[in-house]
Parts: sequence; C-alpha cells; structure tokens
Amino acid sequence: MKILILGGGGMIGQKLIRHLVQNPNLSGEKISEVTLVDAFIEPAIPQGAPFPIHSQVVDITDAHTCQSLVSTKPEIIFHLAAIVSGEAESDFDKGYRVNLDGTRDLFESIRALSGYCPRLVYTSTAAVYGGPYPEDVDDDFILQPTTSYGIQKAIGELLLNDYSRRGFLDGVGLRLPTICVRPGKPNAAASGVFSNIIREPLVGIETTLAVSKDVSMVFASPRSAVGFLVHAAQLDTAQLGTRRSMMMPGVHATIGDEIEALRRVAGEKVVSYIKEVPIHSFAQQMVDAWNFPAFPATRARSLGFTCESSFDELIHLHIESEFDGKIPGQTL
Amino acid sequence: MKILILGGGGMIGQKLIRHLVQNPNLSGEKISEVTLVDAFIEPAIPQGAPFPIHSQVVDITDAHTCQSLVSTKPEIIFHLAAIVSGEAESDFDKGYRVNLDGTRDLFESIRALSGYCPRLVYTSTAAVYGGPYPEDVDDDFILQPTTSYGIQKAIGELLLNDYSRRGFLDGVGLRLPTICVRPGKPNAAASGVFSNIIREPLVGIETTLAVSKDVSMVFASPRSAVGFLVHAAQLDTAQLGTRRSMMMPGVHATIGDEIEALRRVAGEKVVSYIKEVPIHSFAQQMVDAWNFPAFPATRARSLGFTCESSFDELIHLHIESEFDGKIPGQTL
Repeated sequence: MKILILGGGGMIGQKLIRHLVQNPNLSGEKISEVTLVDAFIEPAIPQGAPFPIHSQVVDITDAHTCQSLVSTKPEIIFHLAAIVSGEAESDFDKGYRVNLDGTRDLFESIRALSGYCPRLVYTSTAAVYGGPYPEDVDDDFILQPTTSYGIQKAIGELLLNDYSRRGFLDGVGLRLPTICVRPGKPNAAASGVFSNIIREPLVGIETTLAVSKDVSMVFASPRSAVGFLVHAAQLDTAQLGTRRSMMMPGVHATIGDEIEALRRVAGEKVVSYIKEVPIHSFAQQMVDAWNFPAFPATRARSLGFTCESSFDELIHLHIESEFDGKIPGQTL
Repeated sequence: MKILILGGGGMIGQKLIRHLVQNPNLSGEKISEVTLVDAFIEPAIPQGAPFPIHSQVVDITDAHTCQSLVSTKPEIIFHLAAIVSGEAESDFDKGYRVNLDGTRDLFESIRALSGYCPRLVYTSTAAVYGGPYPEDVDDDFILQPTTSYGIQKAIGELLLNDYSRRGFLDGVGLRLPTICVRPGKPNAAASGVFSNIIREPLVGIETTLAVSKDVSMVFASPRSAVGFLVHAAQLDTAQLGTRRSMMMPGVHATIGDEIEALRRVAGEKVVSYIKEVPIHSFAQQMVDAWNFPAFPATRARSLGFTCESSFDELIHLHIESEFDGKIPGQTL
C-alpha cells in the first residue's frame, strides 16, 4: 500500500509519518512506501521505518507536479497542505492559489487517471463555520466561513463531495479543531495564540496575549489529529453517502478556560509568563471570525472519531510528549 | 447607472431587460445604459427603451472578456450566466469551466479595478441543497448539493461572500426555486420537466412524463424571478452581514400536485396530453437529487422578497402572459 502525504513537512504531517513508522499497517494492509511532500521544507524522514520513505519539496499549484505525484497511484493520499488562516487573509492571491487551485489540481490529476480512485483524506477546519450560531450547532449547520481560509476549505469540501460522488476519488474530509498544544515555533495561523499561551509559559518564556480572553475555540491534541487521519484512512466510506466531510470532536474552551487549566496543571508561576497586552485588531478580528460554539460532532463520534475530554488533558499530553512529564517553567 | 447582464440571452435575462425597459429606474436612479451578453445567442434587444442597450456574444471563461466587460465599471451586474444542471452533470469539464471558472474570472476582473465595488446579483439555485432533510429546513441548513451544478453554484456563493466581505464587490446571491411555468422551448436543465408537463399540454402538445409523480420541488414564476433580481439590485446589503445568499420564497409542490393544479385550472382534456412513460433513469436521478422540502425562506421573506402562493397561480400567470388568458389546448 503506497501512501502520499501532501504537507508532510508540517507539524501534523510529521506526527503522522512517525505514527505510520510505528504502526505500518492500514486496514490490515502493509504500507509499502510513503512519499512526503511539502512546499516549504523538505520533510524530515524518521529513522527505522520498515518501508521506504521519499521526501520532496514540490509546488502543488503546478499542475504537472500533481500529475507526477499521483502517477504511481498511491492508494491513500493525505492532503494536509495549506496556506494557513492568517496568511490566507493577508495574501488573498496566495491563499486561493494554494488552498483552492492546488486542491483542484490534485483532484484533477487523480481524475485524469482512469481506473484510479484513491482514498483521499482532506483536512478541512472548524473555520468553515461562521456565526451567528444557534444554541445547538449540529452536523446540519450551514457553512458560512468568515475568513478567506475558511472559504477556501469549504470549497475544497464541496469539490471533495462532487469528485467522490462521481467516483473519481474516495474522499473523507475532517473539519479539524484547533490543534493544541501545538509544539514547535509559532506559525502564521491566527489560531496560534491558543497554543502560544500554553506552550511558551510551560518552558518559562514570556508570551503576550493580544486578544480577548472571552474568545472560545474547539481543541484537539496533535495525537488526536493523527488519530482522526488514520481513522479516516480506514473508514468505511459507504457510511458517508454524499456528505464526505464532518466536524471532528474537540474540547470547547475560552482563552480564559485555557489559562485556568494551565493554572491547575502547572501552577501560578507558569501562568505568570502570560502577559496581557492591548488587543491587536487583526488578531482579534481573526479569532472573532471563529469564536466557536461547542460542536457536539455527533456524526464523527458515531463513526468512531475520538478526542480528549478536557483542556487539562491537552496540557498533560503536551507535557508528557515534549518534556517527559516535567514542566521546565516551574523550576526556572 | 450602467447595468451589465451576463446570461442576458436566456429566458430570465430577457424577462429582466423587458422589465427594465418598462421600469428604467433602480434605487431612484435612472438607468443610463444596459449591456446584455450571452455565450450562446446574441441577446434580443427590446423595442422602445429609454436608454441604449448593447448586445454581444461573449465567453466569460476568457479572462480578458471579463476584464473588458467590467472596464466601464457598471454599477450593477446581474450574473445569470450558467451551464444548467443536466449539462453540468453530463459535461463535467464544461460545468466547472463556466460555472466556477467563469464566475471567478468575473469576480477577479472586478477586484482588479481599484475603487470599484459594484452590486453583483448572483443567481444561485435551490440545487445547492441536498438531502437528507430534517423536518424544518431553515436558512441555517447546510448546503450539501448532490449535483455538480449545485456544487458549482454553492462554490460561487462562497466566493460571493468572501469577495463581498473583502469589499471587492457588493454581492447578493439568490437561491432560485425552479422557474415555472418556463415559456419557450425545453432547455438542458433537468428541472425542465416541471414546466414541460404544464406548458406543452396547455397548447395541446403531448408531453411525456418520465419521472416519478412523487418528486417535489419549489417553484416561482418568471415574474417573481425578475422581482427577486430587481429587489436584490436595490437591497440594503448592510442587512446581510457576511451571509450574502439566501433561499428565495417559492411554492412547494410535487409533480402530482402540479397535475392536479393543471386539472383545476385547465380541465381534463389538457391533462390528457401528459403521457406517463417508463421512468428515465438519468432524469429521475437528477430530480431525486433535489426532491426539495418546503423551504420557509424566512430570511428572504423578511427582507421583502415575495412570490406566488399556489401552483394554480403559477399556471394562471403563464396563461395570462403567454395566451392572453385563453387556453389553446382546450379548444383544439
């Protein structure tokens, strides 16, 4: 079984390949080969894989590139590549070129190969939603994104439905919660703030909070994100009908809730590294565009997608995976 | 005030220009000039207009064409041009080229002109919806189209939202019910059957019915369709927020209901021209993809969009406008 991971150099792509190296079977079939591609960085190849891993820097907005990537007919494609929310908002053309045209190039390259219908796992986002919200935001709630990133991802979902219905590919779209705690450096995602205020204090680095503490979000750990992807790759898609995308489960919390969880898990000293500064209007506008309600994600849960049950758990997971259970910021 | 009508050669485009000739003001401003363009046919120019009317055959999938069309900065653009449902289903590439790329070309051409933000009235369709439906299908119900046409129109709605939010244009999207009774010849719209079974019998021509009588639809007259467009052109869009499209009001009826209305309005002899034939699988698949519930269209109604209240009224309107109140099929 050949696998192609677009966006394989990103945080989730890297966690995914490390998971596959440890668990080299999908749907009971052995993985024979994985290709990791990324527009920004040559994806790192983890050690000790029981299958060959190829790594390349490519530009999916070049149609020939997509044709070449799918020419070996990988059975599973994870399409994680995207221009993130903040950058798609500040660079209108780039967002559409990568998030819309790039996705379409990929789908068209697949369609051009006759007798080929790969499982395509597409990472959408909770940002396909936009308020005002009713009390219950169920799986039938309309997608009216209020960022260009959300619009581009919602369009990708529609294309995924149509190409799946037509039999060109076998799509599963995952509306990901904000991944938290996101390890590594901040990226251009406007949602970065939700991780920054946990990750940096935990290592004793001051971090500024320039948005309102009332903003609410839906979160899942990096581990859950990988779990969603792997589950989607193996899902019986006959259960999905023509609706290929769904909101993934997540933990609902405001920034204020996050800080309280951090206080419970890591103590006052760690929390003191968060410095509230005057509200930054662009950042606030981006997070206001979401300000998500608690999505019950009934459909995803009933299909076996699972996540954490509290924000405290998300912080504990980060402490375990990044610092082996010790909190550097407590002892500085 | 300059107006541009894309799809000006179509049935609705022609009804719209005739309406504007009779009512040459919008939002209290005099119309100074109208340009009608169409990909298929040079749009007919009605007599006696108090303003100049230009008519051209153009291809909106050519980016230069769109740039040239908007170069005079028309204040109002009606974008009615589309590959209809049946053709978009049978010709995948053509549907995407015109309905998606053509719309994007138009929006991009507008965006390229600085200081320009025209009112753009976009005709979407009830086909952006797809079942399964809950009991109440309100304005918050998700768009999950089950035809390529519906997917393309839903994508156009998302683009309309984003380009409006960004201030590139001032969009209003109208999810049109099936226009009925549609005068003239059948077109490639799969929804043609809903008009055919009324229009042809009224003039004493046999028509075949190759889909199930249980299929239900939402209908509005051509007169209402023009009313929607003209109202949208003059609407205070501050009321719309970031959600620029909405379901228009319509009359809910099954094909069986249509036939009963025809019997009431025109009598048994006229109904006898409908010949039930074995179900045609492609046609049935298309109408099954809709099989619409009664959309309350609460938002549109509250914004002043109005339509007929019964299917009988739709037939009466057709008889008045096409035959001056007499029914040819009754006296053959």
